[in-house]
Amino acid sequence: MTFHQVEHPLLVIPGPIEVSDDVLFANASPSQSHMSKSFTETFGNTIRMFRQVLVTERGQPIITAGSGTLGWDMIASNLTEPGDDVLVLNSGYFGQSFSDCLEAYGAKVTHLKAPIGQCPSREQLAEALKFKKYKMVTVTHVDTSTGVLSNPQMVSEVVRQVSPDTLVIVDGVCSVGSEEIRMDEWSLDVVMCASQKGLGVPPGLCLVCVSERAIQLVETRKTKISAYFASWLNWLPVMRGYEQGKPVYFATPPIQLICALYTSLKAITSRPIEERWSKHKEASLDFKQFVTNELGLKQVPNDPSVAANSMTAIYFPDGVSAPDVIPKLFEHGIIVAGGLHKEIKDKYFRIGHMGITAIDTTRHELEKVKDTLRNIFTTIGHAAKTTD
Amino acid sequence: MTFHQVEHPLLVIPGPIEVSDDVLFANASPSQSHMSKSFTETFGNTIRMFRQVLVTERGQPIITAGSGTLGWDMIASNLTEPGDDVLVLNSGYFGQSFSDCLEAYGAKVTHLKAPIGQCPSREQLAEALKFKKYKMVTVTHVDTSTGVLSNPQMVSEVVRQVSPDTLVIVDGVCSVGSEEIRMDEWSLDVVMCASQKGLGVPPGLCLVCVSERAIQLVETRKTKISAYFASWLNWLPVMRGYEQGKPVYFATPPIQLICALYTSLKAITSRPIEERWSKHKEASLDFKQFVTNELGLKQVPNDPSVAANSMTAIYFPDGVSAPDVIPKLFEHGIIVAGGLHKEIKDKYFRIGHMGITAIDTTRHELEKVKDTLRNIFTTIGHAAKTTD
Repeated sequence: MTFHQVEHPLLVIPGPIEVSDDVLFANASPSQSHMSKSFTETFGNTIRMFRQVLVTERGQPIITAGSGTLGWDMIASNLTEPGDDVLVLNSGYFGQSFSDCLEAYGAKVTHLKAPIGQCPSREQLAEALKFKKYKMVTVTHVDTSTGVLSNPQMVSEVVRQVSPDTLVIVDGVCSVGSEEIRMDEWSLDVVMCASQKGLGVPPGLCLVCVSERAIQLVETRKTKISAYFASWLNWLPVMRGYEQGKPVYFATPPIQLICALYTSLKAITSRPIEERWSKHKEASLDFKQFVTNELGLKQVPNDPSVAANSMTAIYFPDGVSAPDVIPKLFEHGIIVAGGLHKEIKDKYFRIGHMGITAIDTTRHELEKVKDTLRNIFTTIGHAAKTTD
Repeated sequence: MTFHQVEHPLLVIPGPIEVSDDVLFANASPSQSHMSKSFTETFGNTIRMFRQVLVTERGQPIITAGSGTLGWDMIASNLTEPGDDVLVLNSGYFGQSFSDCLEAYGAKVTHLKAPIGQCPSREQLAEALKFKKYKMVTVTHVDTSTGVLSNPQMVSEVVRQVSPDTLVIVDGVCSVGSEEIRMDEWSLDVVMCASQKGLGVPPGLCLVCVSERAIQLVETRKTKISAYFASWLNWLPVMRGYEQGKPVYFATPPIQLICALYTSLKAITSRPIEERWSKHKEASLDFKQFVTNELGLKQVPNDPSVAANSMTAIYFPDGVSAPDVIPKLFEHGIIVAGGLHKEIKDKYFRIGHMGITAIDTTRHELEKVKDTLRNIFTTIGHAAKTTD
């Protein structure tokens, strides 16, 4: 294998992320039949490895062409029936969008909304669950708009205590593959994500993993599912078939992207998943310490305990805004993301540190980002307190 | 550019098809931001070129992660409201599946079903349109299960005469890029397809193009669209934005697949589209003459006028079945598809001839397929009548 990707600016937005040469090469695999023995093996193993990433034995992965957004449609269309109450733990932009999706399918959404930089507390959740019987509670593990890290384990604990039949849904778009998730142990009903973040694959895949309980609910629901491509009843035979070595057709799978995912998951599962989480934590901690100690800047999450390990959201200092920083980073071959949460959109910027950028320190990518930021902020007079 | 794809068996199923090195290399593009200037330009140009392929100036392309199946969801969820009547011109497996999708969204489907190997006639259609006011008529341009070619131009003519407000929907999954389609001139309301057939790109994209009239219907419909990812109201600002050079976020686009599509569309639109249709026609005619004259075999379409140019569906002769032929082709590095239409599943096989396999005769791919089939059928005693 001698494939090397084209030289390009370093992409450190919170997804898509940098992808390894191996994964990109797999994305350039020659055409093959979706019904072939070799692709069936690849897809079957991909499904099995995705389970390992979520530390689940009983969860049923469903992997299709799409994006994280389609994952919301799947959850809304399969697990809610019109009129069902849903509690959305809202820690930013993506809680709001998930809620729009749920409402499109007729769910009645209640928001438990945290101030910017925070997520709803254990007490607030327990209190909210007493008022109404919710079909599901959704939590955005890492809200990509704010970098706020929620605690799905705590959410699930509270739900199981107060309202045990309520489903616990984790939007793991910006967390799967980079943050600790233990689907079985934490009793999560759905974990959903996309390919282009912690899994280190180009965008174009929607990945969900569904608990036995949630599958049973889908299979026994009273009303028909008002969707076709998003209906798990259409995908379950396909996923089970590929895993058992017997291809089943519903829609042509995105073969090259599945090969790319297979390649990335092989690398990820070649080491204990705990090690991957730790490495993301270390990279994040180091970067956040740099932001605080050297740049002297505040982050959007208002406490380290609610700050994601997959990304950092940084407030500009007074008098500085995106045009002072982002184009300068670009001049140095670094691409970061501006603000997204509409209430603070122009006040902050975002840096992703997932996948090989966080794990493979021999790439020195975060070092480059830090050096460049240090120079930029020094130049514009908001320099570090100390630089050791 | 020195990328060459890995050696692999020749894939001549009716999609996915063989993909050029250039397109696969684009599918291995490095990560880039979906909001970047360069990707915005790529996506904008891709949208414009897709219009050229459909010979439309007024149609609005919508290109997302997905598959042809998702295109059905888009049509059903955006253009029908529960209780709407839809007439499905059924020429095989895919008419049936499209109908299942329409019903999932509450449409009431009437089938105008042709016997296997045929498609509904002008007279049958005109007659059917008199009985009921249909919201839409759907036609599968090439039914991949039978290789039957329908005539969307005729369908549209009849609809405009008898029931002018009825929408004309073309499932072009196995025809766009290989069969003649003139969206504006034929007054088609939606043409939908996927990336892995006549467009010569890996699977993973859903492409639709929507007429102004259909867009207006979506924007003024009485009931809310009961979908989110499939809702064109969410995608229209995105598509318009990228085309105007201003990226808009709804869901992360499948960047590498869009780059691959861009690369393929650049090659396709570098020549007049009529030339591409002709080349597919020539390749198909040559192959079908071989099947008739040299193999002496019957095709599923019962008349050349209803036989696709993108593929050939061939009945096995008496006493011969798939295990006698398909594994032998595989031994010679050729992958074809078995039967799909459930009533005749074991009685025929399918060969795709789209994209570079049909267009680029210097690859000699169809020659190889013909030579190998000739040898196999000679060996099993069902040889040609003459071989000139």
